[in-house]
Order: sequence, then C-alpha cells, then structure tokens
Amino acid sequence: MTRFALTLEFDGGPFMGLQRQAHGPSVQQCVEEAIHAVTGERVTMHAAGRTDAGVHALAMRVHVNIAKAFTPFRLTEAINARLRPNPIAVIACEEVPDDWHARFSCIGRAYLYRIVNRRAPLTLERGRAWQVAKPLDAEAMHRAAQALVGRHDFTTFRSVHCQAQSPLKTLDRLDVRREGDLVLVEADARSFLHHQVRSMVGCLALVGMGRWDEAQVGQALAARDRQALGLNAPPDGLYFVRALYPTE
Amino acid sequence: MTRFALTLEFDGGPFMGLQRQAHGPSVQQCVEEAIHAVTGERVTMHAAGRTDAGVHALAMRVHVNIAKAFTPFRLTEAINARLRPNPIAVIACEEVPDDWHARFSCIGRAYLYRIVNRRAPLTLERGRAWQVAKPLDAEAMHRAAQALVGRHDFTTFRSVHCQAQSPLKTLDRLDVRREGDLVLVEADARSFLHHQVRSMVGCLALVGMGRWDEAQVGQALAARDRQALGLNAPPDGLYFVRALYPTE
Repeated sequence: MTRFALTLEFDGGPFMGLQRQAHGPSVQQCVEEAIHAVTGERVTMHAAGRTDAGVHALAMRVHVNIAKAFTPFRLTEAINARLRPNPIAVIACEEVPDDWHARFSCIGRAYLYRIVNRRAPLTLERGRAWQVAKPLDAEAMHRAAQALVGRHDFTTFRSVHCQAQSPLKTLDRLDVRREGDLVLVEADARSFLHHQVRSMVGCLALVGMGRWDEAQVGQALAARDRQALGLNAPPDGLYFVRALYPTE
Repeated sequence: MTRFALTLEFDGGPFMGLQRQAHGPSVQQCVEEAIHAVTGERVTMHAAGRTDAGVHALAMRVHVNIAKAFTPFRLTEAINARLRPNPIAVIACEEVPDDWHARFSCIGRAYLYRIVNRRAPLTLERGRAWQVAKPLDAEAMHRAAQALVGRHDFTTFRSVHCQAQSPLKTLDRLDVRREGDLVLVEADARSFLHHQVRSMVGCLALVGMGRWDEAQVGQALAARDRQALGLNAPPDGLYFVRALYPTE
C-alpha cells in the first residue's frame, strides 16, 4: 500500500463542492471513481480543504492509499485520462509517508479571491470572478482588512453550517490590491472557518464601495454575530491556491 | 442617425464565429438582435476583424448606426442587458463620425495566442488556451518567428477559405515569451489573412517541440504553398486584443 499526495486543479463550477455529496457531483467522487477505474480499488480521498460548490482550486492537496504499484508519473497520466471530461486535473503527484495526511498534516492554507470591478457583465471570466459594478477603493479595502489579521473569534464570518469546534482562528494575511479592472484579495491562515474568506471579502467590498466605513469591519468582527455580516461574496471568485506542509 | 463605435469582449466558445452565419449562432447576430430589442431598429454591425468559431476577443471594435437618441452610457447598459446570457459584453462605447468605419478605418490589429505548456489537461483554462504537453522552447520559437516579420507572401499560412485579394501582408511583430506554464505569442499587423495567426503559431509550436528546426519556418514561408504548413493551432487559444485607428 502506497500513499500518494496528489495536487489537483479544478473548475468548481459543475460541482456541489469538493466533498462527496448525496445530491450531486463532487470533486471527491470524480477522483475516487477515476482511481477505481485505473486500479480497481475503492479509495477514500482526503483533502487539505473542503471547498464549496463553485469554488475553484489551483493546487488542492489530497492523498489516497493505493495497493497496486505505480510510479507517480504513470498514476498521474492514468487518473487524468479517466477524469476526462470533468474539469479536474492532477498537476503533481508524489509518494508520501503513511503518516502524511493531506488535511491533518497541513499547517497553512492560502486562498485568492478575484473581483472584476467594472459595469460590463463578465464573458471570459464568467464563473471565475465576482463582477462588482460600483468602483471599489482597493486601498481602503486593504486598510480595513488589517483589523481581521491575527487571532480572533470569527463567529461573524462563519457559516451557520460550519463544523469547526471553535470560532477562534489566526488569520496570517489579508491583502487587497488592484491590477487594472481586477481587485485581488489574498488570505493566508493555518485553517479557515466555513465561508470565512467569502464573508470577509463581502464586507471588504462594502468598504470598497463606500457603503461601510473602514472601522465597521473591526466592529463586525467584535460583534461575534453572524447578523453583523454585511455580505457573503459569491463562490465564483474564490480559488484554493496553496496548502503548506511542515517538510516543504 | 448616430454612428457608435462599440468595444466588445466575448468568449468565442459558443459561436460559429463573429460574422453572421446561416447555420449557427454568431456574435454579430447576438449584438444586432440586442440592439433591435433596445431600439426597434434593424442595424448591421461592422467589425474590425472577422474571428472564427471558438476565437475570443478582449476588445473587438465594431460600429453600428442608430437613429434613436442615446448617450453612449445608456446604450451600453441597454445592449448589455439584452445580450445576457450570451458571453458578449460591450466594454466601451463612443459616438464616432459618419465616415469612421470599424473595418475600413482600422490601421492595425493585434492578436494574442495562449499556450498552456504542461502534461495535465486543462480545467479552468479549457477553451481558453491550447494545451501542449511536450515541453516548448519559447526562445527558439521567438527566434524562428522573426523570419515571418516583414512584408511577405503568406500563402502558406492562409486558409483555403481566405477571401483576401492578395496573400501579401506586412507582419509588424511576432513575439513569443514564456510566463511559467504559459507560452504567449503576440502578433501585430495592419491586417491578417484568414487563419494566419493560428497557422504561424502551429509552425512555431513545431519548432518549440524540436520537430522543426528554426530555419524551417522561413522555408515554409518561402514555399508559398499551404501544403508546407506544419500545423494549424486550435482556435481556443486565440484572442483578438486590439484594433488601432488613425485618430487614437
């Protein structure tokens, strides 16, 4: 039995989410079925993060145990062939020790949120960004974001469906910058609550539009109340970018 | 009657091409029908370029004549509302003189071709780039490309369906560069033959893979024979980027 760490890239659009769901297609189901087609084995995929419906990944780390012998290259090629036509690809693969766990060994996660700030509807970016028509002040968003960095009770920014035991999380970085029409938000933490990034981005967008003043972000945090949330940004603009492990 | 110049962004995926076609949806048909819905007028759209099925535009310039009074802002908003759910958007609009013609006044066109150079299939980039598994030497591609710059008979790089009167064209720029997994080809000319960019990119990819040596690109050009063409790159990676006019 060999444990393989796979790096997945996927378009979250067609999926109910990363985790297997009773009521629709998931990234997990597609990958597990592809591996079954390749190996004849029923495996369980474990992932660094559990992304929602419509959320994308540039490099999600997952692991599976496989009994049949494969080189990482051959396994990657075979899984990718069986994943078609689903918009999921294995972009890296390596053997890892049996105690390496994609979720429990992970010590850092990074997300990117992409906003296209213009009046015109999206075409090529549809499903891949959040279109915000009102001009956003990205510098004000960045300043306001700093109130969220550090160790806090993020109850305000937590979905009612969140399964985490504690709302206490340490946010290491929340940077906002503009590149032309794009406003990019980058968030780093050891781990995030369910909907945390989308909830934070939603409130920052209100600041960017001038509907909230900068201090209201910190006030919403201090309220520790989901009712204090201004806006939950849509999944389309959210990308799981990176999972960090101690030995890497 | 006012002539409006519109700048269109579109995802070419669902269309048979920019020009109206008898056998399927086109960008022209969608825009003309949106304008009819807005104004009640039957207009004819003229465009700087006639892109093929699957080819995208970041900023295609077109013009239409409209009798009813509109500000550019109101016209843009109204057309965009009627274009939904087609992946076409008016991203700029201005009044232009009656003798300004999107096609005949245009003195320069720029295209971008995007190659994703990796073994893994595309996910988020599907339909938006050409995936080439074999490693490409982008520097060799750039060097080989320079044989095509200048005034030449581009018969080799011209579709059999090309309607241009002459195969003589002046290519002002053909630059190839790598950005991580991406290999980007940028082409500037006053005008291009049908399939010219895709034909040039196909041959450059052969050089990048090492299947052609650099000198073969110039030899293919000198052959002035479509049979000398190595490969026609798929439409997915091609973007109409810019149209240039004398007064701009």
